[in-house]
Parts: sequence; C-alpha cells; structure tokens
Amino acid sequence: MAHKQLAVGIDIGGTNTVFGFVDREGKIHAEDKLKTGHFTEAGTFVKALYEKITTTHQKIDIDNEISGFGICAPMGNINKGTIENPANLPWKGIIPFADLFRQYASQTVIVTNDANAAAVGEMVFGGAKGMKNFIVITLGTGLGSGFVVDGMLVYGHDGFAGELGHISVRPKQSGRECGCGKKGCLETYVSATGLKRTLFKLLADSIKPSELRKYSFDQLDSELIHEAAKRGDQLALKAFEHTGQMLGFKLADVVAHTNPEAIFLFGGLAQAKDLIFKPAKEAMEGNLLHIYRGKVKLLPSELSARNAAVLGASSLIWSLKES
Amino acid sequence: MAHKQLAVGIDIGGTNTVFGFVDREGKIHAEDKLKTGHFTEAGTFVKALYEKITTTHQKIDIDNEISGFGICAPMGNINKGTIENPANLPWKGIIPFADLFRQYASQTVIVTNDANAAAVGEMVFGGAKGMKNFIVITLGTGLGSGFVVDGMLVYGHDGFAGELGHISVRPKQSGRECGCGKKGCLETYVSATGLKRTLFKLLADSIKPSELRKYSFDQLDSELIHEAAKRGDQLALKAFEHTGQMLGFKLADVVAHTNPEAIFLFGGLAQAKDLIFKPAKEAMEGNLLHIYRGKVKLLPSELSARNAAVLGASSLIWSLKES
Repeated sequence: MAHKQLAVGIDIGGTNTVFGFVDREGKIHAEDKLKTGHFTEAGTFVKALYEKITTTHQKIDIDNEISGFGICAPMGNINKGTIENPANLPWKGIIPFADLFRQYASQTVIVTNDANAAAVGEMVFGGAKGMKNFIVITLGTGLGSGFVVDGMLVYGHDGFAGELGHISVRPKQSGRECGCGKKGCLETYVSATGLKRTLFKLLADSIKPSELRKYSFDQLDSELIHEAAKRGDQLALKAFEHTGQMLGFKLADVVAHTNPEAIFLFGGLAQAKDLIFKPAKEAMEGNLLHIYRGKVKLLPSELSARNAAVLGASSLIWSLKES
Repeated sequence: MAHKQLAVGIDIGGTNTVFGFVDREGKIHAEDKLKTGHFTEAGTFVKALYEKITTTHQKIDIDNEISGFGICAPMGNINKGTIENPANLPWKGIIPFADLFRQYASQTVIVTNDANAAAVGEMVFGGAKGMKNFIVITLGTGLGSGFVVDGMLVYGHDGFAGELGHISVRPKQSGRECGCGKKGCLETYVSATGLKRTLFKLLADSIKPSELRKYSFDQLDSELIHEAAKRGDQLALKAFEHTGQMLGFKLADVVAHTNPEAIFLFGGLAQAKDLIFKPAKEAMEGNLLHIYRGKVKLLPSELSARNAAVLGASSLIWSLKES
C-alpha cells in the first residue's frame, strides 16, 4: 500500500478544539477533540493537544506520514502564526501559537482564522475547485470572510485581510452596537445574532402576531427563527428578508473591490437556503455596477457542515503543497 | 553603449492620447501625443497611433529596443485586452484594442484602466517601491482604484477589479445620482465633481458668505474651490472637510477587505494636501476595526503628475518583466 500523506486539521473553538487527519481527497482517517476551556494557559493546552493528536495518530492503521498542521482559531494571524487577543478563548494577549506548536512538531504549521480556512477549504475540497477568484462569507455568531485572488488566499500586510463583519452599514458611526466597539458593523445585522436582533426590532415595531413573541432575547436563536419562518411566521420571514437584503446590498460593494467569480455563503444562516439567498441575490444584483451584473455567482458552501472546520484547517497544508 | 530596453507607455484620454518611451529607471526618452477625438473609428486610430509612435521612436538617438506597449484607457480590461463601452471615448461597444495593436507590433501589449496603471506605476516608480500590499485611489473627474495584493495587481475574474468609485455611501439606493445609473456612489461625493456637488449643497444650505457664490455650476471646478479654501473661504474649507471625511470613512471599510500597508491618493484632489488628507486620515482611523488602527498609511502618490499616466502605462511592461 502506498505511503499516504495526511494533513492534520485543527479547529480551535471557545468550547471544543476538534482535529482530524485528512488526506488529499478530503477523507478524514481519524478525529478527536478536547475541551479548550479546561486550559487556562496556552502552553499547557498545546502540550495536551499534541499528546492527544499523537495518541489518535497511532490508531490509524494505514501506512502514512504527516505533511503538516493547519490550525484555525479566532484572530489567528497567518503572517505571524499568532492568535491575537481572542475574545472567545481562555487566553489573553498575543499568543505565539505556531511557535508553541513547533516545540513538538517538525512539520509545517500554519495558523489562520476560521473564515480564511473555510475559503481555502472551499478551493481544495468544495465548490471553488478550479476557481481563481472568489470570496467565502461565514455566517455564524458573527460574520467572517476569506478572499482568494488569483488562486491565493489574501493575507494582507498584517495578516488580517477579510474582516467584512466590521464594515459599516451606514455612513458615519451609527446603527447597532457591535462587540468590537464600533457601531453599525455588518455582522450586527448579518449573522445569527444579527438575525435575532432584527427579529426583536420587528417584534417591537410591528403588531403582527408571531410565535416568537414567547421567547426572551436569551432564549431565541437563529434556528428557532428558521423553524418559525418555515411554518410561515410573517415576522420571521421578514427578518430573513431584511438580513438577506442587507447582505446582498453590501456584497455588491465587496464585488467592486476584487471582482470575484463567486461568493460562497458558509455556516448556519446559509442553510436557510432561499430564505437568505433569494433576497441576498436580488439586492446584490440590484446594486451591482453594470459591468458586474449577472456575472457573480452567489452559492452555498459545498463543504460538509459537520467536518468543514477540520477540512478547512487541513486544506491550508494541501494548498501550500500545490503552490 | 549598452542596448537600452524601453517600454512604450500610452495613455488614451477623451481629448488627447499621450505616449512616451520609458526606461527601467522611469526616464522618458521621447514623447508625443495625438487627438483621440479626431478618430471616429478605433481601427484608424490605432494605425495613426502606431505610425506616430514609430516616427517618434526614430528620434531617439541611443541604441534601444522596445520591450512592450503598456496602454491605459477608460474601461480598459486587462484580462481581455479590450476597451469596453468607454463613456468618454469616441468608440462604442467592446473594442479589441490589444488585438488591433498587435496587427502592427510583435511585442507584449497590455491594456488596463488608468487606476490600475497608476497602481503599478506607484509600485515600479513611486512610493510603493518594495510594498507588497497597497491600494491607489485616483481622484479625478471620478474616483478609480487599483489593488495590489502580494506584489501583484488584482485583475479579478472579469478583469474589472477595483471600482471603488461605485461602492455605496448609504444603505440602499439613495443619495446623489451617478453617471453609472446608480445612486449614492462614492465618486458622487469623493472626486473633483463630488467636491463641487458638495460645495453647491453647502451654498444652498448655508447663509455664510462665500466667494464661490458668483460661479455657475458649469463654471466652478475643484481648482477654484481649492484656491478659495487656501484664502480661508469657509464653505470651500467645509466642502474639503466633508469630502475627506467621506473618503476616510469608506477607506476604513476598504482596509477590512485586503488589509493593505498603505493607501495612496493620486490626482488633482490629492494635491490639496492637508485639506483632504487631514479629515480623511481622522475619519479612517476613527472607523477602522481595532486590529488595523495606526497601521495603515495614507500617502500622496509619488508619481510626477505631469508624466504619471505614461509612467504608469509603461510600468505594466516593467512589472511583467520582473515577475
């Protein structure tokens, strides 16, 4: 049997860190996870993570070799291999994560954020195969983005390209408060949280009945709104429509920056399909400069939701091996 | 004497087409121009242009060889070598300009728009030497932009990356009418024309005296406003302040796309120096996401205004020879 090259994809989240051994075709040969929150210090976390990876590696029964470690984490900086002031992780300040990891591993180690990993994952394993210019928008608690230009992930001068969650929806600082300290950021409108905020505004503004009037802000989430919309709840439908319109309107501006072939939507909200895609497509087309009209595809991510983060993280290694 | 390589930089404008023979160091060895408007058909224009280039070439008395022809024109498409529906040129439809030119020239021919040429020119001959990630904003009658990512000009999937003149200043289609058919486009506020429109709005809204009240809309231009501002005219100063603020506010969003090291301002308005740079810098910094704050330089172009277009066009050839 041939010697199989495997990349380890590691997704560091606030609650869990999951990892998997992924081959060039996107097959996961082994996977496991550990609780991020159990480790108050990044150094001890990396040690425990590497030990668990080693244990899991031993369970793979085919002849193999590890090509490298692709790691995605909130505020992961691809230029420096650092994780910088992550709001949702138990560690503070600027953590030299790649360097910590290299104490144990001699292979390539790449650190980036979730949206960049999703973009490279889409190119290596998903719907962007063969595309040279595209953007992935991740719609989760917040809104993230990864840009690919001429077949390469855009890092930017400081390693922080693609923070579309924090572009402004209105002129000047106005609109909804954002966790980043600014006002009117796109993710306060377009994200799972943004959808909920819009729904609450509609509950306040409208007198229409809605099954969602029985939930507190803390209880409500985007899945409940999605379920209500599927049952025809008018305010839930309207919340999706507003969210899609705002997204599409801003995507028209995004297109004028790098003129992509396609924009992929990834994450929970993207699974609401037409509820979000239809208003987004209409608003995007309606606001595009004429030279772009009818040319930019708005598509759902083709990465399997369950393994997307691990696939995306591992793809950082595979894309490197190709270039 | 060594065999000198020269690139021909050609700038096609609505009134004149200027060209020059430029060496690797940015020295122009010969230059001339012809009237674009005299030619109602692109084919006869290209023939006359090539003849004039040949005549001018014969006047250069050093031993030399032409490496290629870099051409910039409104709506020049770098992927296809076309000029597509240019509003300000006498030709209609999609003109296969590079192909027409190759009937006469065997060397490399590259066609792009003014802002892309300015971006490459800044990298080869100007303030962006050694920079890998930067943006050039051209402020003329309209607003153009060229993006450089990882040392390469961003073309985009359709060859039309960098149309920041037509991103929207307000949510939904509202605000000033734009020549592109949309409303509220950035260039309706931030450009020589945008400055004039803002000044006219201030003349309408305010009762303050202003030396500019004596001009009709047709008479007024950005230079008159600049002169008035230098003399302390309050409405002229305010018009510059508003223009700079709007620019800076949107540049903060632009940064969140490709995370550049620097943004260069090029063209007439940029020559107003602090009148435009000061409010633009303040508004940009005030609206940047925290991870970018204090890191992105806002700089004047270092290309000489007189030769910038020819230098920029010729640099398309030099940047190609290096990569």
